[in-house]
Amino acid sequence: MANLMRAISVSEFGDANVCKPAKDIPIPDIKPREVLIRVYAAGVNPVDTYVRSGTYARLPNLPYTPGMDCAGVIERVGDEVTKFKVDDRVFTVKTVTGSYAEYCVANCNYVFPLPSNVSFEEGSALGTPYFTAYRALVIKGQAKPNETVLVHGASGGVGIAAVQIAKSLGLRVIGTASTEQGLQAVINQGADLVFNHKKEGYINDIVNAVADNEGIDIVIEMLANVNLNYDMQMLKSRVGRVIVVGNRGTIEINPRLLMSKETSVCGVGLFSTSDDEYEMINSYLQKGLADGHFKPLLSQLYSLEEAAQAHKDVILNSGACGRLTLII
Amino acid sequence: MANLMRAISVSEFGDANVCKPAKDIPIPDIKPREVLIRVYAAGVNPVDTYVRSGTYARLPNLPYTPGMDCAGVIERVGDEVTKFKVDDRVFTVKTVTGSYAEYCVANCNYVFPLPSNVSFEEGSALGTPYFTAYRALVIKGQAKPNETVLVHGASGGVGIAAVQIAKSLGLRVIGTASTEQGLQAVINQGADLVFNHKKEGYINDIVNAVADNEGIDIVIEMLANVNLNYDMQMLKSRVGRVIVVGNRGTIEINPRLLMSKETSVCGVGLFSTSDDEYEMINSYLQKGLADGHFKPLLSQLYSLEEAAQAHKDVILNSGACGRLTLII
Repeated sequence: MANLMRAISVSEFGDANVCKPAKDIPIPDIKPREVLIRVYAAGVNPVDTYVRSGTYARLPNLPYTPGMDCAGVIERVGDEVTKFKVDDRVFTVKTVTGSYAEYCVANCNYVFPLPSNVSFEEGSALGTPYFTAYRALVIKGQAKPNETVLVHGASGGVGIAAVQIAKSLGLRVIGTASTEQGLQAVINQGADLVFNHKKEGYINDIVNAVADNEGIDIVIEMLANVNLNYDMQMLKSRVGRVIVVGNRGTIEINPRLLMSKETSVCGVGLFSTSDDEYEMINSYLQKGLADGHFKPLLSQLYSLEEAAQAHKDVILNSGACGRLTLII
Repeated sequence: MANLMRAISVSEFGDANVCKPAKDIPIPDIKPREVLIRVYAAGVNPVDTYVRSGTYARLPNLPYTPGMDCAGVIERVGDEVTKFKVDDRVFTVKTVTGSYAEYCVANCNYVFPLPSNVSFEEGSALGTPYFTAYRALVIKGQAKPNETVLVHGASGGVGIAAVQIAKSLGLRVIGTASTEQGLQAVINQGADLVFNHKKEGYINDIVNAVADNEGIDIVIEMLANVNLNYDMQMLKSRVGRVIVVGNRGTIEINPRLLMSKETSVCGVGLFSTSDDEYEMINSYLQKGLADGHFKPLLSQLYSLEEAAQAHKDVILNSGACGRLTLII
């Protein structure tokens, strides 16, 4: 193992092109509670692009290497780490030094075992998508069996995870996507009904489809700045709640929609997760991975050097289904 | 008792002037579960004006007599009513035939005893304001002792009730109003701090004032279309919630404010209250009236014939504190 590695280095906040490949980044040191991971695949999240653009609330010091999610093997363990040993297969949900790199450092609380039946590419799709989807559905949304959930934007990384987790919990799942390919992918994940959210009048189509339930119990919303006011119209009286997972701007809403049905809107942020909650979510995730209920859907694979393109695609592409991943 | 009575009659939806005094309205009949009340004072609620304008979601058949809240004495009881007898002093939170009248019919589930230490004028200020405030604070807001509540618009009927109930529950109460008179009234009701919401920068003043608590636990919001985005900025992380009690239009919000602190917005509508909940709220209200914790604040008294003016004032006046009431 040399002392230098390949990694993406961002020296200034800006558009996707500030993601520059470098070959001379020092392999980082670890502290007693940390591990060094040899990264084989790094997941690309929308939030990675918000940080890179400099508009996010919490920003790293420059220069920095992006990335929270990856899968790989343990290269080195800190003195106080008993959870892992060298060569263990693992995935992360948070890193210290950034996962768009040959090696990354992570606190062992945010590193979890990668089951042998899950590839590194699939493993890079577990962290943020599945932990966020579980937090939204269960911890904040308090989803119950037989409730109807609308996953509004179901073909992306978090959306696919939300469909799989909701089905595993016994909910009725309605998904939306914007292309035939996306809709088919959502069906393949087990959704009971799908609707194209680019189609005029699709809100009424959903309302009619759930008339037997008097509305939607839970909306998992990936793009609140576009959909929130529609979501509020679809909720079931007294119990309906919108769980906001994704948002890219402001929206005009009519708060009376919440009053007339006594419904609610609740925000979710993965960074609010406590260490105990991470362990709880991981336990459910490991069970679902072992029995095959949870299987990450990979969309497109990129080389590390193509990170800038992946950043463009994760925001702008419509029709891609599942996870964008860098192969390292 | 003659067969005709004085009452306000609305023959078409429209502005306040459609509230026409009439002298030839038949005194209504009662069904077995109903009572006939001789009305001495009728409360004027903002929602009465939304119904009258024809823009509300639930509209009566025309012509109709407005009004949900009143205080008076029982004139006649239905065959199945055991809860009341003739001459009992009572107040209502909902009527069948409208309270802007000499007599009104109400289902006995929405009629409650008026304690002897509470005047009819005060009794007309109990129904919608106190039941709504309790529903917002306790049933939907789940207020706990030592939490900090912002009553955003504290000098109106519901606001005054919310301040009194919150103090009785052991919360720290911050109130806003738009005039010196209103601020003083809110202080007099027991608020710990008050702020003028017409003053530039008052949001920052509130944020600074609650820095020790890391934000507001609960906002009781009377005008969400103006304040909701500010409310979201003031909430405490993880626990903060906005309870929307009043709203008169749309507003542009940034849903990311909910995500970054995992906070929520919840609507309240009094008509969603179950009969059991009405009884529960009444029990707390009777206790507070008996021990003097709850004392309605009367703003301005009008004659029945001045109902149109009262409808204008309840929406447009700034500076009035407490309840607008028609003396009949």
